[in-house]
Amino acid sequence: MRMVDLIAKKRDGAALSSGELGWIIEQYAAQAIPDYQMSAWAMAVFLRGMDAHETTALTLAMARSGAMLDLHDVAPLTVDKHSTGGIGDKTTLVLAPLVAAVGLPMAKMSGRGLGFSGGTVDKLESIPGLRTALSGAEFRRLLREVGLVIAAQSGDLAPADKQLYALRDVTATVASLPLIAASVMSKKLAAGADCIVLDVKYGSGAFMRTPEQARELAQMMVNIGQLAGRKVRAVLSSMQQPLGCAIGNALEVREAIGALRGGGPPDLIELCLILSGQLLLMAERADDEATAHAILREALASGAAWAKLRQMVAGQGGDLAYLDEPTRLPCAPVQIALPAPQAGYISAIEGASLGLAVNALGGGRVRKEDTIDPSVGLVMQARVGDQVYLGQPLLMIHAPSMAAVEAVVPQLLAAYQFSAAPVAPPLLVEAVIVL
Amino acid sequence: MRMVDLIAKKRDGAALSSGELGWIIEQYAAQAIPDYQMSAWAMAVFLRGMDAHETTALTLAMARSGAMLDLHDVAPLTVDKHSTGGIGDKTTLVLAPLVAAVGLPMAKMSGRGLGFSGGTVDKLESIPGLRTALSGAEFRRLLREVGLVIAAQSGDLAPADKQLYALRDVTATVASLPLIAASVMSKKLAAGADCIVLDVKYGSGAFMRTPEQARELAQMMVNIGQLAGRKVRAVLSSMQQPLGCAIGNALEVREAIGALRGGGPPDLIELCLILSGQLLLMAERADDEATAHAILREALASGAAWAKLRQMVAGQGGDLAYLDEPTRLPCAPVQIALPAPQAGYISAIEGASLGLAVNALGGGRVRKEDTIDPSVGLVMQARVGDQVYLGQPLLMIHAPSMAAVEAVVPQLLAAYQFSAAPVAPPLLVEAVIVL
Repeated sequence: MRMVDLIAKKRDGAALSSGELGWIIEQYAAQAIPDYQMSAWAMAVFLRGMDAHETTALTLAMARSGAMLDLHDVAPLTVDKHSTGGIGDKTTLVLAPLVAAVGLPMAKMSGRGLGFSGGTVDKLESIPGLRTALSGAEFRRLLREVGLVIAAQSGDLAPADKQLYALRDVTATVASLPLIAASVMSKKLAAGADCIVLDVKYGSGAFMRTPEQARELAQMMVNIGQLAGRKVRAVLSSMQQPLGCAIGNALEVREAIGALRGGGPPDLIELCLILSGQLLLMAERADDEATAHAILREALASGAAWAKLRQMVAGQGGDLAYLDEPTRLPCAPVQIALPAPQAGYISAIEGASLGLAVNALGGGRVRKEDTIDPSVGLVMQARVGDQVYLGQPLLMIHAPSMAAVEAVVPQLLAAYQFSAAPVAPPLLVEAVIVL
Repeated sequence: MRMVDLIAKKRDGAALSSGELGWIIEQYAAQAIPDYQMSAWAMAVFLRGMDAHETTALTLAMARSGAMLDLHDVAPLTVDKHSTGGIGDKTTLVLAPLVAAVGLPMAKMSGRGLGFSGGTVDKLESIPGLRTALSGAEFRRLLREVGLVIAAQSGDLAPADKQLYALRDVTATVASLPLIAASVMSKKLAAGADCIVLDVKYGSGAFMRTPEQARELAQMMVNIGQLAGRKVRAVLSSMQQPLGCAIGNALEVREAIGALRGGGPPDLIELCLILSGQLLLMAERADDEATAHAILREALASGAAWAKLRQMVAGQGGDLAYLDEPTRLPCAPVQIALPAPQAGYISAIEGASLGLAVNALGGGRVRKEDTIDPSVGLVMQARVGDQVYLGQPLLMIHAPSMAAVEAVVPQLLAAYQFSAAPVAPPLLVEAVIVL
């Protein structure tokens, strides 16, 4: 087999066989196929697409390029959750302790933020002392003892995906549905969970701009999961405005703590219940959604979920004093309101612009090597559909300096659109994809 | 400017500006854009195409990536010729001395063979002593003194094209019309000729399979030439069977010598007259094709063209004894006929298969580093349209051993198709493209 022939085959629109895709990934992981051939192939895939068989074959090949975790010796059934990424998405921080509290062990590998989107690992690391670089033995021990562990994505899992993703990032081949599906699912399959819920986001603050794209991606990933023998469901959720109010690492941790302690923004709580509910249904811990939601609401109300987060943070070395008094978490020196530039109903909030503004404030990464400032970010004071008067605070800016504030204000203002007529708030969840 | 954004722009089907293409080539030549980005861009160009402005901008950027020859201090007007490559194409060996003999100085840079197609430099080097690696000073001196020089493509000319071509070759992005046009024309523009004739070949032995593709490519290249202020015309010629009879380096030199000494296959002579005639018309040495052809026929008949080849070979260090007695040129130890496997009219001769067979005999290159055996090759004894009896020799195989013969026979036989009914020979020249 020669890579140049396989590139030509895909370039001409033909489907590659499982054997051919397996060979490509194996050779690429072994550095026997150079990046310049892989990127030409990725562009051909981007423009010519891949069918369901190809996508599954690619996923399995990438999953098998490294360690395949088997956690059944630690827990008979584990669950996992993945979000395709959005602005202000602190769902994992609430959902993970919630499902663990109702008896579904979760051993999760999470990523760091890049571009306009944040990452769970960065958020968790704003808690002083908390470690996410865990050894395999620690990971298993915490799963056994706490029933919940969140570690930084290990390089051992799906290393071919890691290699290919880094290449796609610099060759304009990220936004390909089959490549995204294969990337997400290869890591999820390698991480070993039995039941996986996918939060596939659409809208201005997500990679998928429309519900139709999100549905196509969700369907692909659910299919792959089934072909690989796992239970997988997907929720299509709106990122037409950021989720909850806080955007920024420590700010999001505070909001998540609030949600676990009986408060929290209603959209965040609702999405967590819907995603967690699907995990309960897949794990056969509830017969219907209403029962599942009742179990979960009880775990929130009783403080069981909050207690589970404390256990997890303590287990991973985090200082509970910061969790119990979230005002002690890193705070930005400048906190200032962004006044509404006009009166009216807010008709749109462009999430990607807010995410990039947080990046510009120092809260995210442009390149992987960048360090981040956990204290900075935004806290929204108004949502799509709200009526505001001229000068009413749209959001609070948490910044390192006034100069930093001034630099992002134009971008922030440009993220808002106003309407004279009332505007209906966007639907939070479009559909649940069950095979 | 960021390369990843320019890749995305082309990926999405937009046209790149002259400034953007200039930047890409400049940065790529300076090694500031890595191969993996360039190959993703090339695949996007392959699948999305480029318009006339983009193709011209790319061509000029590649031409300007190295030295731009200006030969006007040596000769007020120089001519050049390029073929898109075919099987048995020894046209340059006849045409170059022919036009130089009638007073059109030709300073030509030629390539080596790769894949199924041969190269003029390899052919010339089968003459003992002859050097094609010439310094700039030698090149100019020979142009001044002889009016004819053929050198191996210098690395100084259009180095960005050389770099990109090597990358396209291993990333399945060769067969893109705009990229082919830009590659050819960047070298021709950099080589400094005032009048350029292009021999754009189509058929089973050429890169372009159909006259329509060849016409599109020819039109692109003629347009580029005009936009760059040169006189350029293109001839669409058939490669539905090899040109002339000989395929293989020394064998083709022998055939070219025959053509310059009053013999030679009629199709070779005809194509040389048509291409040379266009050069005479562009250089305003003749008012019409008939006059041009009369001038050229006279130069062949008088021995002036033959004398010019001898001058050139002597000037470049070649031993004239081999030219004057071509039987002394390298000879293969085994020479054996390929008998017709059936009686009938020959309806097709697949040139690419014959070219690959010569490669397999050792006469061509699979990789650039390969060395070649100048002695081996094929001499066709029958052409499309000829009626043959069972066992009649279709061609002579010149091989290093009987084992080598046996290895290529199945491939050679597969190149022939036969018909019970008479078959018309293919048209040699489809059209001349004049802007």
